[in-house]
Amino acid sequence: MKKFKFITALAVCGLALQVASAPVYADYAKENAYQPKTHYLAANSDNVRWGNLGIGEPALSVNSGDIVTVEAITHHSGDDYERMIKGDAGVEDIFHWTADEKHEADRAPGVHILTGPIEVKGAEPGDVLEVRILDMNLRPSGNPEFEGKTYGSNAAANWGFLYGDMIEEPKTREVITIYEMESDGSTDWAKAAFSYTWTPQTDPNGVVHETIDYPGVIVDPDTIVKKHDILKDIRVPVRLHFGTMGVAPREADVVDSIPPSYYGGNIDDWRVGKGGTMYYPVAVPGALLSVGDPHAAQGDSELNGTAIETSLTGDIQVILHKKENLNSKLQDLNFPLLETEKEWVIHGFSYANHLAELGEDAQKAIYANSSLDKAMKDAAYKTRLFLMKGMGLTEDEAYSLMSVSVDYGVTQVVDGNWGVHAVIDKTLFAKKETKFVSLRTSFERIGAELTWDNRAKTITTTHGSNELVIKIGSTEGSFNGKAFELVTPVNIDNGVAVANEYFVEMYLSKLLTSR
Amino acid sequence: MKKFKFITALAVCGLALQVASAPVYADYAKENAYQPKTHYLAANSDNVRWGNLGIGEPALSVNSGDIVTVEAITHHSGDDYERMIKGDAGVEDIFHWTADEKHEADRAPGVHILTGPIEVKGAEPGDVLEVRILDMNLRPSGNPEFEGKTYGSNAAANWGFLYGDMIEEPKTREVITIYEMESDGSTDWAKAAFSYTWTPQTDPNGVVHETIDYPGVIVDPDTIVKKHDILKDIRVPVRLHFGTMGVAPREADVVDSIPPSYYGGNIDDWRVGKGGTMYYPVAVPGALLSVGDPHAAQGDSELNGTAIETSLTGDIQVILHKKENLNSKLQDLNFPLLETEKEWVIHGFSYANHLAELGEDAQKAIYANSSLDKAMKDAAYKTRLFLMKGMGLTEDEAYSLMSVSVDYGVTQVVDGNWGVHAVIDKTLFAKKETKFVSLRTSFERIGAELTWDNRAKTITTTHGSNELVIKIGSTEGSFNGKAFELVTPVNIDNGVAVANEYFVEMYLSKLLTSR
Repeated sequence: MKKFKFITALAVCGLALQVASAPVYADYAKENAYQPKTHYLAANSDNVRWGNLGIGEPALSVNSGDIVTVEAITHHSGDDYERMIKGDAGVEDIFHWTADEKHEADRAPGVHILTGPIEVKGAEPGDVLEVRILDMNLRPSGNPEFEGKTYGSNAAANWGFLYGDMIEEPKTREVITIYEMESDGSTDWAKAAFSYTWTPQTDPNGVVHETIDYPGVIVDPDTIVKKHDILKDIRVPVRLHFGTMGVAPREADVVDSIPPSYYGGNIDDWRVGKGGTMYYPVAVPGALLSVGDPHAAQGDSELNGTAIETSLTGDIQVILHKKENLNSKLQDLNFPLLETEKEWVIHGFSYANHLAELGEDAQKAIYANSSLDKAMKDAAYKTRLFLMKGMGLTEDEAYSLMSVSVDYGVTQVVDGNWGVHAVIDKTLFAKKETKFVSLRTSFERIGAELTWDNRAKTITTTHGSNELVIKIGSTEGSFNGKAFELVTPVNIDNGVAVANEYFVEMYLSKLLTSR
Repeated sequence: MKKFKFITALAVCGLALQVASAPVYADYAKENAYQPKTHYLAANSDNVRWGNLGIGEPALSVNSGDIVTVEAITHHSGDDYERMIKGDAGVEDIFHWTADEKHEADRAPGVHILTGPIEVKGAEPGDVLEVRILDMNLRPSGNPEFEGKTYGSNAAANWGFLYGDMIEEPKTREVITIYEMESDGSTDWAKAAFSYTWTPQTDPNGVVHETIDYPGVIVDPDTIVKKHDILKDIRVPVRLHFGTMGVAPREADVVDSIPPSYYGGNIDDWRVGKGGTMYYPVAVPGALLSVGDPHAAQGDSELNGTAIETSLTGDIQVILHKKENLNSKLQDLNFPLLETEKEWVIHGFSYANHLAELGEDAQKAIYANSSLDKAMKDAAYKTRLFLMKGMGLTEDEAYSLMSVSVDYGVTQVVDGNWGVHAVIDKTLFAKKETKFVSLRTSFERIGAELTWDNRAKTITTTHGSNELVIKIGSTEGSFNGKAFELVTPVNIDNGVAVANEYFVEMYLSKLLTSR
C-alpha cells in the first residue's frame, strides 16, 4: 500500500513547526507537501454495514489530512417510517426490505448502521488515527409533510437498565418516544412529539418481533397507540454526537457493533461531537474507520438503552500519526481517547479489550460480565498511565491529581461492555494545554489572507477558493457562503483576535482543503 | 419543644406569595413573623464531634431561617502541624493530645471532625431540613510564618481505590501531598507545595501507626522526607465544599461518619458548595445537623481516598419544611437532595439506607458490600421517583428523560457506601425551574431599598442595618462592607437588573437577617 503523509502548510511555507508548543493533534508528519481533499460519503446500501465493524471492502479510501463529509443514519428510523425514512432516498435504500428483497441482508451480530469503512492510506497497526469532528448537522426529514424538521427515536428497550424493573405494569414494556427538532439546528433542544408502547411487529419475512430484537423492523402504525401531549413544556438540550465510531479491531474480521472496546466503536459518549477529536489505535492495515449510530442527545449512562437516535451528517478530518512519530500522549495508546478544547477524556470499559480478554466466546460472554466496578478500575488505570506518560508525572503526582481534580462519569450501562470515563480538565496544565494564539498570525502562516470588517465585527479568511468568515465574540460563522457554527467564539484581547490553539488547528485544515 | 416557623418578609409586607412559580426552597411556612438571626459556631473541642454523627448535646440551637456561620476543620490537619494547626487556637484545641490529656478522646468509629450538631427547633421526623450554603471561605493558616496562605492535605490512603495496586514499589505506600492556596480566595486554584510518603508515626500514648489508621495523629517532620518541586506548573481548580454534612439518623445514636446514607453525611460531592442547597429528611427531633470534612477540591470519585482536605468557614441558612407542607419534590424525601442554580442532583448509594438494610452489623458490613453497580441502580430508582413525583411525569416520560438528558457520575468509591449521582439540568423544565426575576421588584418586596450607581455599575440594597452591594455583570459584591462573592452575576436585560430566582432567594434572607 502506497504511503501518503499529511503535511500542514507550515512546511509548505517553509516555516518551522513549533513542535514543542504544538498540541498533539498538530504533529502529523512533515514530509511531502500534500493538499488535503474533501470527500463526500453518502449513506446508502453500498456504503454502509449493519450491525458490525471490522475487515471489509472500504466504502472510501482517503489520505491522511483529508476531510470527509459523512452521512450517518440511525438504525431506529423504522420506529417512525413516515418521519424518518419516507422520501429520503438514502435511508429508503438502506431500510429496503420486502419478502423478496432485503438490501441490507446481514444485520448482525449487532444493531448499528455504520457508514464506511473508510480506508486511510498508509495506516498500519501501531499507528494512531486522529479523527477531528469539524461539523455536525441534523439530517432533515425527507418527507415533505415534515419539511424543516428532524426526528429522533428514544427506545426504552429490553436491554435498558430498568427493564423488567418498572413501577407500573406491564413491568417489561418497551416504549418508543419520538422527539422533534428544527432540522436547521436553529433551536438547541429537542421536544417530544409522541410515544407508543412496542407491540409485536411482523417483518416482511413473516417473523414476529415480540420485542425490539432485530434492527430495522418498520413499525406498522396500525398496530400501535400513539400518546401525544407527553413531556409537555420539557425541552431536551441537544448534544449531537456519533454514538459509534471506531477502527477495525485485530482480533476478528466481523465484530458485534454493540460493545465498545479499545478500537472505539459504540462508546456512546455524548462528548464525541462537534469540536471533539478522537484518537484510535490502528489495529489493521488501512485503519478502516466506521462512523454511525448518530445521536441528537444522550445523558451519561444512556439508561433506558438508547439516546435520541437520529440521522446526522458530519465533517470529519482524519489524520494519521505514524508509529515512529507518536508523541508521549499517543505512544502505546490502547484505548479510544477523546480531546476537546477544554478536556481530555479517557474511556474505560469493564474489559479494556473484551475480544482478547474473554476468549473465543468473547462476543457473547461480554454481555454477562459487565460491571461498573470493573469499568471504574479500567478508567483509573488508563488515567494514571495517561498522566504519567502523556503529561510526564510521577505515579504519586498522577494519583493525587486524579483524586483532587479528575471527574469520573458513567458513560453507559447498556452496551455489554459498560463504560466509565474520566474527564481531565486542561486548565490543570495551564498554558501547556490551553494556549491562546493570534488568529492572524496562525492563518497567515498557511498563506491565508485576512480582512477585518470593523462594522460587522467579522474576520474573513481566504485561502484558494475557500472562505471562512468568523464573527467576533460569537460562534456564528460561514464557510464558503454557508452558515457554519464555530466550536468556540473568537475574542479580542488587547486589540488582537485570539483563539485557543485547539480551535485554530480545527479550522486551518478546513481552509487548506481542496474541493 | 416549642415550634418556630420561618416566614419570608413577603408575608410581613402583606404581599401574596407566588406559590405556583416559587421554587421549592421558598415555600417554607408562612405563619408568624420571625426575624431570622445570625449565629457564629466556632470550631473548638466544645463544639465538635470526631468520627461520628448522631444523637447528642447540640452545640447550637437555632430557629428555622437562621443563618449560621460555621467553622469546619479538617481531620487531616495533623499531616502538616506547622501549616494547618500551629497558631490556630481552635484547631490546636481540637487536636490537643498529650500523654496525659486528649481533648477529643473519642475519635470513632469514623474519622471526620464535625461541627455541631445544630438543633433546629421544631424539627420532627418526617420534616425536611433545607440547608442553603450562602458563602464559604478558606481558613487562613494560624501560623504567622504562612500568613495569607491556606493549606490542604491530600492523602493517597490505604482505603484508596488503587491502594496495593500501584505500578511503582512499594505498592502499598501512602502518600501525603500538601497543597497551598491564597487564603483570601484571590486565586481559584491550589498548587502542590510538597509531598511525603507516610512513615510509622508514634502517637502521644505510644501507639505506633504504621498506616493512616487513626485520625488526628500529628506527623513528626523528622520521620518523613519531603519532596518539593512536585506537580510543577500544575494548578488544581478550587471547588470549596463540605465533604460531610447531614442530620442524625434514626437507626443508631452514634453512627460512623464515613459511609454516607439517606441522612446525608459523607456524600463527598464537590457540588455541595457555595450556592448549593441541600435537603435532608429529618429523622430525629431537632434534626441535629453536623457540618464538616471541608474540601478545597475533589474530583468525582475521590479516587485515592481523600480530597484536598482543608479547613473552611461557611455561612449556612437552615430552613425547616414541616411534614404537612412539603411540596411534591420534598414529599417522602428519603435521600440527600442537592439543588443548585442550574441543576438538581440526586445522590444514590450502594445501599440507600445501609443502617436499615444491612442488619445489626451494618456499620461494618457496608465496607464489604459496596459496588457502583448497586449505587447506579439506587441513583436510577431515586431519579425516576423524583421526576415522577417532583416533576409530575409518568414513568415512561421520566425513564426517557433520564436516558436522553440525565448525567450519572461516580461520586466516590472510597467511603464504604459508594456513590453514584444523577445531575438533572434545570433548563429541561425551562421557566418552570429557571425563572429570571427583577432584582428591584424582588428586593423591594421585602422592604429593602435599592440604589443604582451608574458609574460604578453597582446596585446597593439595604435592609435595616444590612447592606448588600452587587456589581452588575460580575460576581464581585460586598455584604456589610466586607467583600462577598456572589454565586452568579446579575445582568441587565432591557434596562432591568435581573437574576435567576434561585439567586434572589439565596440572598433575600441574608439581607433580612438580624445580627
